[in-house]
Amino acid sequence: MDFDAFFEQELERLRNDGNYRIFADLERHAGAFPRATRYDGENTQHVTVWCSNDYLGMGQNETVRAAMHEAIEKCGTGAGGTRNISGTNHYHILLERELADLHNKEAALIFTSGYVSNWATLGTLGARLPNCVILSDSLNHASMIEGIRHSRADKVIWNHNDVQDLDRKLSLIDPSRPKLIAFESVYSMDGDIAPIKEICDVADKHGAMTYLDEVHAVGLYGPRGGGVAEREGLMDRLTIIEGTLGKAFGVMGGYIAASAALCDYVRSFSSGFIFTTALPPAIAAGATASIRHLKDSNEERMAQRDRVATVRARFDALGIPHMPNPSHIIPVMVGDPTKCRWISDVLLDTYGIYIQPINYPTVPKGTERLRITPSPLHSDDDVDHLVRAINDLWSQCALARQVA
Amino acid sequence: MDFDAFFEQELERLRNDGNYRIFADLERHAGAFPRATRYDGENTQHVTVWCSNDYLGMGQNETVRAAMHEAIEKCGTGAGGTRNISGTNHYHILLERELADLHNKEAALIFTSGYVSNWATLGTLGARLPNCVILSDSLNHASMIEGIRHSRADKVIWNHNDVQDLDRKLSLIDPSRPKLIAFESVYSMDGDIAPIKEICDVADKHGAMTYLDEVHAVGLYGPRGGGVAEREGLMDRLTIIEGTLGKAFGVMGGYIAASAALCDYVRSFSSGFIFTTALPPAIAAGATASIRHLKDSNEERMAQRDRVATVRARFDALGIPHMPNPSHIIPVMVGDPTKCRWISDVLLDTYGIYIQPINYPTVPKGTERLRITPSPLHSDDDVDHLVRAINDLWSQCALARQVA
Repeated sequence: MDFDAFFEQELERLRNDGNYRIFADLERHAGAFPRATRYDGENTQHVTVWCSNDYLGMGQNETVRAAMHEAIEKCGTGAGGTRNISGTNHYHILLERELADLHNKEAALIFTSGYVSNWATLGTLGARLPNCVILSDSLNHASMIEGIRHSRADKVIWNHNDVQDLDRKLSLIDPSRPKLIAFESVYSMDGDIAPIKEICDVADKHGAMTYLDEVHAVGLYGPRGGGVAEREGLMDRLTIIEGTLGKAFGVMGGYIAASAALCDYVRSFSSGFIFTTALPPAIAAGATASIRHLKDSNEERMAQRDRVATVRARFDALGIPHMPNPSHIIPVMVGDPTKCRWISDVLLDTYGIYIQPINYPTVPKGTERLRITPSPLHSDDDVDHLVRAINDLWSQCALARQVA
Repeated sequence: MDFDAFFEQELERLRNDGNYRIFADLERHAGAFPRATRYDGENTQHVTVWCSNDYLGMGQNETVRAAMHEAIEKCGTGAGGTRNISGTNHYHILLERELADLHNKEAALIFTSGYVSNWATLGTLGARLPNCVILSDSLNHASMIEGIRHSRADKVIWNHNDVQDLDRKLSLIDPSRPKLIAFESVYSMDGDIAPIKEICDVADKHGAMTYLDEVHAVGLYGPRGGGVAEREGLMDRLTIIEGTLGKAFGVMGGYIAASAALCDYVRSFSSGFIFTTALPPAIAAGATASIRHLKDSNEERMAQRDRVATVRARFDALGIPHMPNPSHIIPVMVGDPTKCRWISDVLLDTYGIYIQPINYPTVPKGTERLRITPSPLHSDDDVDHLVRAINDLWSQCALARQVA
């Protein structure tokens, strides 16, 4: 078999379908977010980033940077081993304490990424809880889907955010079987938020565990940045809260917060936790500093909310259609993959505005979009420039407007 | 079901079997490796680490630290997104070029860890190459096993490092099926090295792809640190070379180096690559600096070899049994889980020497061991202290000696 020919042919198919991904080669400017330099072959260009998941700009926060510098000078650049074999650094312990406190849980466990935390935790629980059934929201993230698939536990998919459907499907399962409900608080692409309380009620009724992915919410919601469950006073009702250190906290890594027994169990049995080099001490130190900062400071959250509301209002005034949702994510709906990529290309090349187009398979066909994430660092001028550019391109593409 | 009771009971079983892992809580001292502070409740202790996979001490290298500091000040602490959505930083591009050059391949692709690079690459190729069979060495690392399992491709396990067995098993497979041989160069726990050339010969005979995990070899072997395949002039015969940035290179992350088509294919189709926040720019910058340094400098490799030879010779003189192998890993064989843990505990508490005990299931029962990894930074005094301590404990435990 000519393997490279096979790979080329599959890539060609992606290109023909308009689904081939081209990564923008960026260099963000610490101290001047959301500005970045974009590299394009020999050329460079000054751009404004409007699609980052560093939602609050904590990636340039001075305290976070200082914490990383300090840990590098104190402990070096890497952890030097797996958590079990010389790789546990005191910064990991402090971070796990900080996270347990953030979510008011007995314990927390960090992973190398949010992807790995979902995959490893669901994979381990699903495989090892005897005869377990996992009830998975139909729009769960790839990392949860892969973890559940890996576990080979029975999986039941319930309609997105549909508590009645969940209840009905739970009723059909033998009450003696262990059950785990896996869902997210803020869904990344539509920006909608799960009815967490109602899901917990149904879980309690059926004796099911709850697993809540708050990766797009931690740092952003709740008085201390504990996520939507904190804001709604529901943290104690969730068996497991999963989060990331790589979005609002501005660094890298993932975690779960739960009972001491559960965290110790995943720590002891999960291949994806055990057999991998631990996070660098500096990453743990930076994340800890970021969490502490956002526990005390509401400033970034308030400023972000203001920017989100401003962008929405400006779009509304011009009839630019964006999906209504109660979160910080603004999906501007284009509904056509070619136009979506074209608008994104022109925004970048002509206006210096970088918004990655979101096409199938990340979202369903016909719902292609620009996913915009305003941050506290986008100025009024930035908003002006964005809104005018999109308004121009909307006219050029003869895209439909929406009357408010 | 009382979930926590179930977790507790499973943990109790681990404890009773002597397999419950207790992580040493350390703070390595940059500038003074292999020294570290060990935290134990309220107490701290000064220790010497003898079991790190930061094999060359690059985690405290000045150039690597400087590169990380610089990238943090330039681009901030995190990448801010997935590779596709705003998370590709110019440092990632430079790192991928550096890795392609290191292994003399067309391209390279970085992942958040070596675990993820194995899991994602084997998982993607095994699942998507139509009717693929993966031939897996019986001692492959957990991350490769999980990746193969996840792919649901047919798997054939061949006897460890046994080329005849591999050949025989390949002969039984329909010649038209795509085949991939997955193996490691240096095996972590026994320190033995695969017959790479012979495996490539058999692969060519049967038209199979080869996937070589060099995580315990990159940086350490070959004139530029390209691994055992570089040392033996075999890099061009391997379809995919996989490596880590978290061991000899002293930072964090994993990668593959291969043809441009293959890397682009994995980049385009692998869930574990696509749906995860990219490595922080500073990690990529630190890794690039480390690779460059070890491409030019043989000093660390030579010094490490000297330390390994010295420790082995001292053990031989005292009849301390260690598994013979051609690598830098010295497995001192205890052969009993309780004694292995006891020796490790006393080494730590009484002698300030930290060597994590390696028990089942990481190694087979009856082969429990202390896995020692001498580095260029261990002094003659450190070696003296280690050898005397182990000699004392060998006598106290009445463990067998071995006549040279």
